Amino acid sequence: MNAQQIVLASRPEGMPTADNFTPQSVELPPIKPGEFLVKNLWMSVDPYMRGRMIDRKSYIAPFAIGAPLEGGAIGEVIESQHPDFPVGTKVSSMLGWRSHYVSDGTEHTALPQTPLSESHFLGVMGMPGMTAWTGLNRIAKLQAGETLFVSAASGAVGSVACQLGLLMGAKVVASVGSDEKAQHLKSLGVDAVINYKSVDNLSEALKHAAPQGIDVYFENVGGDHLAASLDNMNDHGRIAVCGMIAQYNDTAPTPGPSNLANIIIKKLKVEGFIVFEHWQHYPEFAKQMGQWLASGQVKAEQTIYQGLDNAAEAFIGLFQGKNKGKMVVQLNN
Amino acid sequence: MNAQQIVLASRPEGMPTADNFTPQSVELPPIKPGEFLVKNLWMSVDPYMRGRMIDRKSYIAPFAIGAPLEGGAIGEVIESQHPDFPVGTKVSSMLGWRSHYVSDGTEHTALPQTPLSESHFLGVMGMPGMTAWTGLNRIAKLQAGETLFVSAASGAVGSVACQLGLLMGAKVVASVGSDEKAQHLKSLGVDAVINYKSVDNLSEALKHAAPQGIDVYFENVGGDHLAASLDNMNDHGRIAVCGMIAQYNDTAPTPGPSNLANIIIKKLKVEGFIVFEHWQHYPEFAKQMGQWLASGQVKAEQTIYQGLDNAAEAFIGLFQGKNKGKMVVQLNN
Repeated sequence: MNAQQIVLASRPEGMPTADNFTPQSVELPPIKPGEFLVKNLWMSVDPYMRGRMIDRKSYIAPFAIGAPLEGGAIGEVIESQHPDFPVGTKVSSMLGWRSHYVSDGTEHTALPQTPLSESHFLGVMGMPGMTAWTGLNRIAKLQAGETLFVSAASGAVGSVACQLGLLMGAKVVASVGSDEKAQHLKSLGVDAVINYKSVDNLSEALKHAAPQGIDVYFENVGGDHLAASLDNMNDHGRIAVCGMIAQYNDTAPTPGPSNLANIIIKKLKVEGFIVFEHWQHYPEFAKQMGQWLASGQVKAEQTIYQGLDNAAEAFIGLFQGKNKGKMVVQLNN
Repeated sequence: MNAQQIVLASRPEGMPTADNFTPQSVELPPIKPGEFLVKNLWMSVDPYMRGRMIDRKSYIAPFAIGAPLEGGAIGEVIESQHPDFPVGTKVSSMLGWRSHYVSDGTEHTALPQTPLSESHFLGVMGMPGMTAWTGLNRIAKLQAGETLFVSAASGAVGSVACQLGLLMGAKVVASVGSDEKAQHLKSLGVDAVINYKSVDNLSEALKHAAPQGIDVYFENVGGDHLAASLDNMNDHGRIAVCGMIAQYNDTAPTPGPSNLANIIIKKLKVEGFIVFEHWQHYPEFAKQMGQWLASGQVKAEQTIYQGLDNAAEAFIGLFQGKNKGKMVVQLNN
């Protein structure tokens, strides 16, 4: 059996480019007892993958040059000698960026039956949705009546964070990179949306959008967004630090905000988190989110690229603001 | 009755200078029923006072131009028509920077009998000691066996933080600004001390001093110290943000560290605090600290300037590293 996969050809310097990625054909061995063959249907591209392309110690090992990339994927079992994964089972794995693979079931989850497209298990029902839920509930402990600021608010995590914030009874202020995205978030009920590309002074724009101040900042961007939030946080505010996408493609150190002393003056709590460390709470999250999706209280949003050949372009598109909601690739093997 | 006091003549630009301060003589009214007259014996100068010299909203109101400065002081009641504060009572107040004053007892505390010099109620038994205790116990939750890094480690707060860290069973690494201070901290049992003025690369020096990494950083300095700690923090490390003295005299915004993404990568918790919000725990602190001082497990350290006329010089000296331990002024009225 022949499988297609994408390998990391070279480590990106700055913004990733197409030639950092190479398609490759590999011969898969026949399955043995206890194994099964998966055809991937969907794969995820996420900003955090940029970090794995750097050769450094982090919470997750770097990708190796010449090895296939990895990431969330949803596939279907098409041959099986494993009792728990019969043919037809839909499985979630971290073995994206490839058309097919053989597994013994390690780190594989069989998906429940659901009226949703399985692709949403890469988005609102998966890691990004769980990230938004964890940041608001377990890290920042957002309370009803508080004001939440979300940056990269039309992204996979941000769009869920905005919607959960509203469901939790917060006033929600969001930042996005286009007027179209801003309009869309307003249609979801977000109270005020800033197109950061159209304002001269983000801190002033945020003050205008949230004159009552910010109690919780869901940080996805870093840089000027962090600085603007520090200016506008209320006393005892919390910053859940999920990502700093503005810096992921930096080729030289970019200075941080000059107003960090607000952490003292306003007695802020700034906490970084990695959703995988909170995964034991996934069932609680999934139960709530399943109900919200079924009732229409949360809208599952995604941008779909077609074909493994376009996976690199989809990934690069994350840093160009090309997605609304979760960016996924549909594999047509 | 004639009293001497120091008023804020002008707001400092950058490092404070003598002409920002003006001595003034004022006539005190005779005391009325329910009042008492205090002769100050000791007054405190603290880095946080620099913040109050700026005209901005903060956790405490700015000093007014032309008004007497304020700060911790220990005095003795020399005339009284107040039943709770008879003549001879030693009192703690926030009415420093003056020789005498009349009070009705508001925000005054009568000091307990103690073999200590009363001046230590401005230091190790007072606000700075309580700050160190709060930061380690209530904010960073330092555990035995962890590694603690303390900056400005020979200052009023830092020198107590180092000693408490050792008592709590931590390995303690400290940063100071002179070899003499480094020697002194080593004599107190601190495991490794960096003279930051003598190293080219603070991050490398810290890595060398704490090859096992830092679990808790007690932040008093900001800037390069914060950057170096972020480089060397262990996963799930905590940063108790008490002060950023490196920036208090900045005349222009100074960029922050470029490595804030470590907050995510290492899942750090960075928390600012103001000791006054934790003051309900003072009795618990005072009981413990009183025992440690009595047993010699904590050494109360102070640098004493003489006379109200030298109070401004003592204050300016804080930013020149002139103190070891708590900087106080003994008033000789």
